Amino acid sequence: MAETKKKKRPHWTQQRGPAAPGLWLYGHHAVEAALKNTKRKLKRLVLTERAAEALGKGLVGRVKHEIVDADAVSRLLPPGAVHQGVALECAPLPQGDVSDIAPAADGKRRIVLVLDQISDPQNTGAILRSAAAFDVSAVIVQDRHSPPESGALAKAASGALDTVPYITVVNIARTLKELSEQGFWRVALAGDGEQTLKEALSSGDIALVLGSEGSGIRRLVRENCDVGAFVPIEQQMESLNVSNAAAVALYECRRG
Amino acid sequence: MAETKKKKRPHWTQQRGPAAPGLWLYGHHAVEAALKNTKRKLKRLVLTERAAEALGKGLVGRVKHEIVDADAVSRLLPPGAVHQGVALECAPLPQGDVSDIAPAADGKRRIVLVLDQISDPQNTGAILRSAAAFDVSAVIVQDRHSPPESGALAKAASGALDTVPYITVVNIARTLKELSEQGFWRVALAGDGEQTLKEALSSGDIALVLGSEGSGIRRLVRENCDVGAFVPIEQQMESLNVSNAAAVALYECRRG
Repeated sequence: MAETKKKKRPHWTQQRGPAAPGLWLYGHHAVEAALKNTKRKLKRLVLTERAAEALGKGLVGRVKHEIVDADAVSRLLPPGAVHQGVALECAPLPQGDVSDIAPAADGKRRIVLVLDQISDPQNTGAILRSAAAFDVSAVIVQDRHSPPESGALAKAASGALDTVPYITVVNIARTLKELSEQGFWRVALAGDGEQTLKEALSSGDIALVLGSEGSGIRRLVRENCDVGAFVPIEQQMESLNVSNAAAVALYECRRG
Repeated sequence: MAETKKKKRPHWTQQRGPAAPGLWLYGHHAVEAALKNTKRKLKRLVLTERAAEALGKGLVGRVKHEIVDADAVSRLLPPGAVHQGVALECAPLPQGDVSDIAPAADGKRRIVLVLDQISDPQNTGAILRSAAAFDVSAVIVQDRHSPPESGALAKAASGALDTVPYITVVNIARTLKELSEQGFWRVALAGDGEQTLKEALSSGDIALVLGSEGSGIRRLVRENCDVGAFVPIEQQMESLNVSNAAAVALYECRRG
């Protein structure tokens, strides 16, 4: 009897239950980018018929998949996750390294973003999205106090988690020294910076450093920057939201 | 007996229970701005000793207040609200009107933001925050499909809900006609715009129009704009997060 009942469950629940650990990505853009990423080890895709049509047969066919109703997708994910009918179980991406940052192509300056203890996955995800939009070579975060790869991060990144290298380092100050040796001009974005953003940018490769909204950039990290730059804003507002500040800085870097 | 028990409850719960309707703002910046806003009708302040010190006696003294522990503040608010130990019950702000937008001062161009059905309070709040940072005269939204004043909106706005006029209108297309008559150059921010943002701005007053991430700006709204403008981004990313796009556009408007 138990055997018979087991056979009625969809094939993927025979291997592990819905609460199995593992990285679940969700939402159309996040899952689409993960399916296209040859470096991403895929496990299983659980999705509605409509979501499958939106992704297309070619992508869906890359991994073991199961067509279900939207509620069944919800049950695999944290409450309130806006999944658009699709969830993908997969492995985290292999770790990249600062020395792997690709050389500049077609005369364009290289940009990297260095996030000093920005812990909110929504903000970090939105920053990744802008990083992809403005052709950033890597987003570098510290292993502690930074959001790990997660469904919420990937959703806010709208696919960018699978297109922009997200590099975790142990010591940001040391990484900034390495970036300087690689020729990056290191700009700390801070309200009390000594130059405006426009003035502070050089014509070459740029490493933009952003701190958390609460405590800003830590002293030792700041000391390893070449210049502090501020976005000119009204005195009545202390600061911009950190993902908005990142978008403005990236826009200025690419504005020409 | 019942009488005696009643007396033991803090004075504010005698008037209405914790689940009483009313607008609750929370978080240091949001509450501080509301307390400073002479147009805001205050009801009662519930806060920890530490939050009271951070706000200062002058501000706390403006309204009936009660010192409690952090858990008591949490119980007044939706689950997960990051309140920093302070909640303020108050009335929504009186409605402003497009004809009340202040004339330009000290040679600076005026900017208004028009949000076409952006329904997410986090995004709208972040946009309000950037609006305050870049000296925007008003943020105009449609009465339907826009977030009402709420604690979540005010928190994301970091005080800007009480410093930037947040104007609700019935018909955005009609409002755009009024803005044109007032001399505003109406720029629709859209990925398929015909000019870059830099090219599309005139030297005078600007009305920046933004649509929702899902469906963009509606046809009738777009037809009432003078130009469509895009932020130059990589093809691999469809669009920026809408609050990031707003920040970039405001930065360009003020960049000079």
